[in-house]
Amino acid sequence: MREVRVNLPGNGYDILIGTGIEEAVVSFFTDADFSSRVLVISDTNVGKVYGEKAAELLRRAGKQPSLHLVPAGENSKSLEEAEHVYTKAISAGLDRKSAIVALGGGVVGDLAGFIAATYMRGVPFVQMPTSLLAQVDSSVGGKVAVNHRLGKNLIGAFYQPKRVFIDLSCLATLPKRELSTGLGEIVKYGVISDEAFFSYLEANCDSILAVQPEPMEHLVVRSCEIKAEVVTQDEKEAGLRAILNFGHTMGHAIEKETHYVRYNHGEAVAVGMMGAAYLSRELGLVGDAEVTRLRELLLRFSLPIQAEGCTEDGMMAAIFHDKKTINGNVKWILMEGIGRVRAVTDVPENVVRKCMRLIISN
Amino acid sequence: MREVRVNLPGNGYDILIGTGIEEAVVSFFTDADFSSRVLVISDTNVGKVYGEKAAELLRRAGKQPSLHLVPAGENSKSLEEAEHVYTKAISAGLDRKSAIVALGGGVVGDLAGFIAATYMRGVPFVQMPTSLLAQVDSSVGGKVAVNHRLGKNLIGAFYQPKRVFIDLSCLATLPKRELSTGLGEIVKYGVISDEAFFSYLEANCDSILAVQPEPMEHLVVRSCEIKAEVVTQDEKEAGLRAILNFGHTMGHAIEKETHYVRYNHGEAVAVGMMGAAYLSRELGLVGDAEVTRLRELLLRFSLPIQAEGCTEDGMMAAIFHDKKTINGNVKWILMEGIGRVRAVTDVPENVVRKCMRLIISN
Repeated sequence: MREVRVNLPGNGYDILIGTGIEEAVVSFFTDADFSSRVLVISDTNVGKVYGEKAAELLRRAGKQPSLHLVPAGENSKSLEEAEHVYTKAISAGLDRKSAIVALGGGVVGDLAGFIAATYMRGVPFVQMPTSLLAQVDSSVGGKVAVNHRLGKNLIGAFYQPKRVFIDLSCLATLPKRELSTGLGEIVKYGVISDEAFFSYLEANCDSILAVQPEPMEHLVVRSCEIKAEVVTQDEKEAGLRAILNFGHTMGHAIEKETHYVRYNHGEAVAVGMMGAAYLSRELGLVGDAEVTRLRELLLRFSLPIQAEGCTEDGMMAAIFHDKKTINGNVKWILMEGIGRVRAVTDVPENVVRKCMRLIISN
Repeated sequence: MREVRVNLPGNGYDILIGTGIEEAVVSFFTDADFSSRVLVISDTNVGKVYGEKAAELLRRAGKQPSLHLVPAGENSKSLEEAEHVYTKAISAGLDRKSAIVALGGGVVGDLAGFIAATYMRGVPFVQMPTSLLAQVDSSVGGKVAVNHRLGKNLIGAFYQPKRVFIDLSCLATLPKRELSTGLGEIVKYGVISDEAFFSYLEANCDSILAVQPEPMEHLVVRSCEIKAEVVTQDEKEAGLRAILNFGHTMGHAIEKETHYVRYNHGEAVAVGMMGAAYLSRELGLVGDAEVTRLRELLLRFSLPIQAEGCTEDGMMAAIFHDKKTINGNVKWILMEGIGRVRAVTDVPENVVRKCMRLIISN
């Protein structure tokens, strides 16, 4: 079992990563200063497989767990679904020291985190991410949110969990496409801050795609370490944290343009990273070699490098409505090499459009 | 113009109190690092009188204000109304550095604060409370919330404003009952931490009830100072902040039992303070003299000391569902004198019921 510390002043926490983490869960809840009622939030897919097992661990820790399943899928990240969960929390008798546990992928983590951040002005929150994407991305760093019909993640908070339990054995049953979407974010960590990690991914594609325990542990641990390091320096995205957004500006636009149906998050980010790489090359920050390395790695991981169903104008409009856009200025995160990025805010529109065309396939 | 500092690490702010504070508003918004769009949230009563004036100040500061009016009344503190406000914020083009301004009483402040805390994971928030109750209580300290149909303020956050502007000239037009409800909370500050202030209230009843500028300024400044002091020591109600809850345990139960219609907040708190005073006397913490002083002052301020329409069992049930109740334990804030309170968690039920009967009128 490995441990990664997210070292925030006042609300730091540990991420536990491994297989066979059950006893660690029991002992954490036994010792924690929480009330006896606990609400486990999961979805209809994950809850069926892991829900009762999680509840049993909580009972062994002397808690009284309730399990609430939301419909699987992005539509559950809504204020309407949140209202149902609040009702369940109140009915189950949760008080302000009762923990809320997120058991599932990113949708469950974001929704449960939003509930934890706002129920009685904030109750203890514990993450148990079960998808690779959630394990390396959304469960770390405290961004929680629900969607508004006019845009994703527009209603949310920065709210840190008390602990994150990452059970790597969940990955064994993950569908191949779910594996790829997680790998999209993992590639991003290599690009933004660790060339050695990027090289490791290149050198170990086969064992990674075979979901072998050793490389998976390394991937999750190193990704969490990089994210923890960034978040520690800039919890609320005042500056540095924006580097985590590499590939996300165009990625979000692709997701929006394709109505969040055609591409999952990691796939859209993969295409968005290519867009950012082209921009970086266009501005002379990198050469062909870096762009090629990124493209090859994404392809090895079965990730797309172009998106279908997008228009240039639609993507431009989406970008200017992104919530990271301040006073109309887009902050682009661009490569200066593999392992190094920087923010650039004055990219001319014609350059953006040119690179956008390179990632739109007809 | 007077200034009270709320000295929180990382998110401290100033409360400006006076008449003729317009230039201070203009200069604050001119200098602040906010985006140009600003959303002013008010209600159909207050917005009609002060909305355009506030918008004009923001325009003078170079901002582009939008005004959103919610229906006056507690029903606007809902997730449903919040959803409308989010839609307005998105449509008006607010980004994550756009300020949200609360212009109104407690309902508007709580709702607008919840929006500010959650829109794009938190945007700058500015309070302009117009009622005495909001000026001395809800606008200071960062508690924001909406109601759930199963209970008040169950969905919220701790979210501090960037500044609070208190225009005392708003008080001149305040209905008499609105004045009294504010005085209920003001009396509370005397009881929990400042006997001299309590004596000042006793000695100046007439000029206070006549809303004379000098005593009103003193009342608002001193109340804000006391609240700021408590909040500074315990922002998130881990301990000390609970003393602000004096009179609120039974007060909330009265509001709930009478469906938030018969008594407004300060009135219910007045009756709740009498209940807490009786409990304190019953446990030997104070004598008859203190109870009498409190009762006499409340009566002078036209506040009730008994509640109609409540039952003992209904109030008991409400108290055990209060969100300050942890694992079934009620934390009572009791008087040890005028100006001194303490928390007591093991008050026997029969004692609670006995004192409750003293404040229930048939």
